[in-house]
Amino acid sequence: MRIAIDRERFVETMQEQAEIGAIDGRGLDRLTLTDADREVRDWFRDQMEAAGLDIRVDEMGNMFGRRPGRDPEAGTILLGSHLDSQPRGGIYDGPLGVVAALEFVQTLEDEDIETERPVEIVNWTNEEGSRFQPAMMSSGVWAGEIARDDAYETTDAEGRRFVDELERIGYRGDIPAKPQHDYDSYLELHIEQGPYLDEEDRDVGIVTGIVALRWGEVTFQGQANHSGTTPMNHRNDALVAASDVITQIRRIPGTLGERTVGTVGDLEVEPGSINVVPEEVRFTVDIRDPDDAVADEAVERVKAEIVAAAEREGVEWEYEERMKAKSVSFADRCVDAVRNAVSDLEYDGREFISGAGHDATYAASVCDTAMAFAVSEDGKSHSPAEYTSWEDCYKAANTLANAALDLAGVTEDGAAGE
Amino acid sequence: MRIAIDRERFVETMQEQAEIGAIDGRGLDRLTLTDADREVRDWFRDQMEAAGLDIRVDEMGNMFGRRPGRDPEAGTILLGSHLDSQPRGGIYDGPLGVVAALEFVQTLEDEDIETERPVEIVNWTNEEGSRFQPAMMSSGVWAGEIARDDAYETTDAEGRRFVDELERIGYRGDIPAKPQHDYDSYLELHIEQGPYLDEEDRDVGIVTGIVALRWGEVTFQGQANHSGTTPMNHRNDALVAASDVITQIRRIPGTLGERTVGTVGDLEVEPGSINVVPEEVRFTVDIRDPDDAVADEAVERVKAEIVAAAEREGVEWEYEERMKAKSVSFADRCVDAVRNAVSDLEYDGREFISGAGHDATYAASVCDTAMAFAVSEDGKSHSPAEYTSWEDCYKAANTLANAALDLAGVTEDGAAGE
Repeated sequence: MRIAIDRERFVETMQEQAEIGAIDGRGLDRLTLTDADREVRDWFRDQMEAAGLDIRVDEMGNMFGRRPGRDPEAGTILLGSHLDSQPRGGIYDGPLGVVAALEFVQTLEDEDIETERPVEIVNWTNEEGSRFQPAMMSSGVWAGEIARDDAYETTDAEGRRFVDELERIGYRGDIPAKPQHDYDSYLELHIEQGPYLDEEDRDVGIVTGIVALRWGEVTFQGQANHSGTTPMNHRNDALVAASDVITQIRRIPGTLGERTVGTVGDLEVEPGSINVVPEEVRFTVDIRDPDDAVADEAVERVKAEIVAAAEREGVEWEYEERMKAKSVSFADRCVDAVRNAVSDLEYDGREFISGAGHDATYAASVCDTAMAFAVSEDGKSHSPAEYTSWEDCYKAANTLANAALDLAGVTEDGAAGE
Repeated sequence: MRIAIDRERFVETMQEQAEIGAIDGRGLDRLTLTDADREVRDWFRDQMEAAGLDIRVDEMGNMFGRRPGRDPEAGTILLGSHLDSQPRGGIYDGPLGVVAALEFVQTLEDEDIETERPVEIVNWTNEEGSRFQPAMMSSGVWAGEIARDDAYETTDAEGRRFVDELERIGYRGDIPAKPQHDYDSYLELHIEQGPYLDEEDRDVGIVTGIVALRWGEVTFQGQANHSGTTPMNHRNDALVAASDVITQIRRIPGTLGERTVGTVGDLEVEPGSINVVPEEVRFTVDIRDPDDAVADEAVERVKAEIVAAAEREGVEWEYEERMKAKSVSFADRCVDAVRNAVSDLEYDGREFISGAGHDATYAASVCDTAMAFAVSEDGKSHSPAEYTSWEDCYKAANTLANAALDLAGVTEDGAAGE
């Protein structure tokens, strides 16, 4: 059985959420646990209530809405993503998957469809990790991969604790942050955040797994000195050492896999004065590859460059691992559900290993999981310039709905369940 | 005629000033126009009063103390430096020259010496330029090279105006910030802030001029994008472009003069998130050489690297000149006064072109000028680790006193004047 979501309502819902925490002109500034996050959560709660869902909020602020199935013993189908954004993010990264999940259950209501399995939709807290690290924090706690109390104690740049901010916005629930039901599968729709669907003029991405990710922080400790009076051969310049490594991180991926990427996204200089040789520089390293061994090899090569640069410049170095996420292979039966939906809807699909981590990373350790991707124009993301046409949003959401319906099963009129 | 300053008093005075705005353990945090700056100014005013000087404060907060000479028509000898510090600076950079000037007039009092010429000592406001730019601001206004109102309107990182902070600490005087007398010469004692005196085990530096200085700010504008999903060949990474240039700025001086230096002291990344390809990077460039033509050539080579890096990485670039100070050659008669003092005192001197800008840069456009340098252990400066032994401080201050006495002239007992 196939269904079609209500395109007009779906687009309106997307537009409504995009007004909360909107950046003038374009994009979203809806960091987790801010007032804007509270506002979008209140709005989402109203939407779930209107759809007749049974709402619960757990102790990490994860928001669930449940629709019963015909068989109360059957494992639940969970669908969702996140409503928080980067400090200067787009309106699709996260919300598309939540709104598509909501639209799915609204369509089930419209069509009066009873699924075999219960269906739940979810808004995970703090997927972005921009304000409180790590990213995907609350799906991580839910999946038992991150300790709740560690998450609670993390602080933002102003020193505010996660748990205090969660309490402040009124979304610290009573329910333990762990699976409250037996989950059959998890599906997540997200924008690609890469260029391939757009470049190849495809409709929807069928995601078969998630790349391995390695995050680290490098510190070089040199010697502050006067820029005018210190000869070049008397310097221990922490920023020069950092620059040498950054230049090499630009080069290393091209010596490894086709899909290897390496990024230095943040860097800070102390004391940071025009006429003082930099004493201390800290910068982040982000390495990814579909293959864990290749990701590890890239980290080793980066470390070798760190050591070489430190020796050349006569500075001390430190490499601190901040996150290590193994690559994930999604369950065939869930990937098939997405693949079949794409095929039945006559969309042009493309298979992917996701370069980005998603809440699906952690969900996959709880139950069978898969993802669908929507087109990202020019691959732009984590930027107000992020864009997906409503047509492409619709196709991706329709894919999600049909894959979910397939997994949830329908028996009315003799139509096949799973 | 030669004199000897009071070593014990001089060291005590140095230690007293070092307690005001002291960093726990070592060093000074005495940024211009802060409460600590007010406190050290109050202390300095008391010292000048006790020495019987005629005090005046000008509209830039420059503090002068005047001692009359035998000939009221003769040009004045001006001696001084600055009492402000870097945010994490040492106790010698600036104060040594002010305390040595004070000790000189105290010694004249002790010995009841009447000089031919009037003698003035000065504490220049905001030499460091860490809080309000540019550096050497108030000697620049005094010399007519910087407009007073431009200086007044500059703001610190918190948006506070220079003039408001000057008013707040009570040091906005009524007297116009320009030479109030005919000045015969200016002498300034400062620490070397470089390694040569220490390395060669010399006593005192005889400074014959100041290098040319070029300051600029570079901006690269790329494209923010997701670090995991954006292939390496789809990136426009502003930090990679910046790193390429910084690596080259490390190399360029070695292709030019023996004394050429190039430094990137400050760098900022936007948006500065571990998983976002950097969109915008700004960094400072500081280039110096004794020869203006070589400094200009270095800037041209840096610009060529900026263009090349921008093209490679597909980012926009901008280079904004922030300061351009021509090289300065000091007057032979003032340099000779320092040279002769070093020789008569049987110290081991070394001639220098200063790599750092000093208030002497601007004073040299008003009257004949020279400088003396004290040893800097390991050349460390702009750091709490800055160090000069009391023995070396004493030798340098004694050199200043004798050079100043030579220029001020003494006729008593038939001793030669100038």
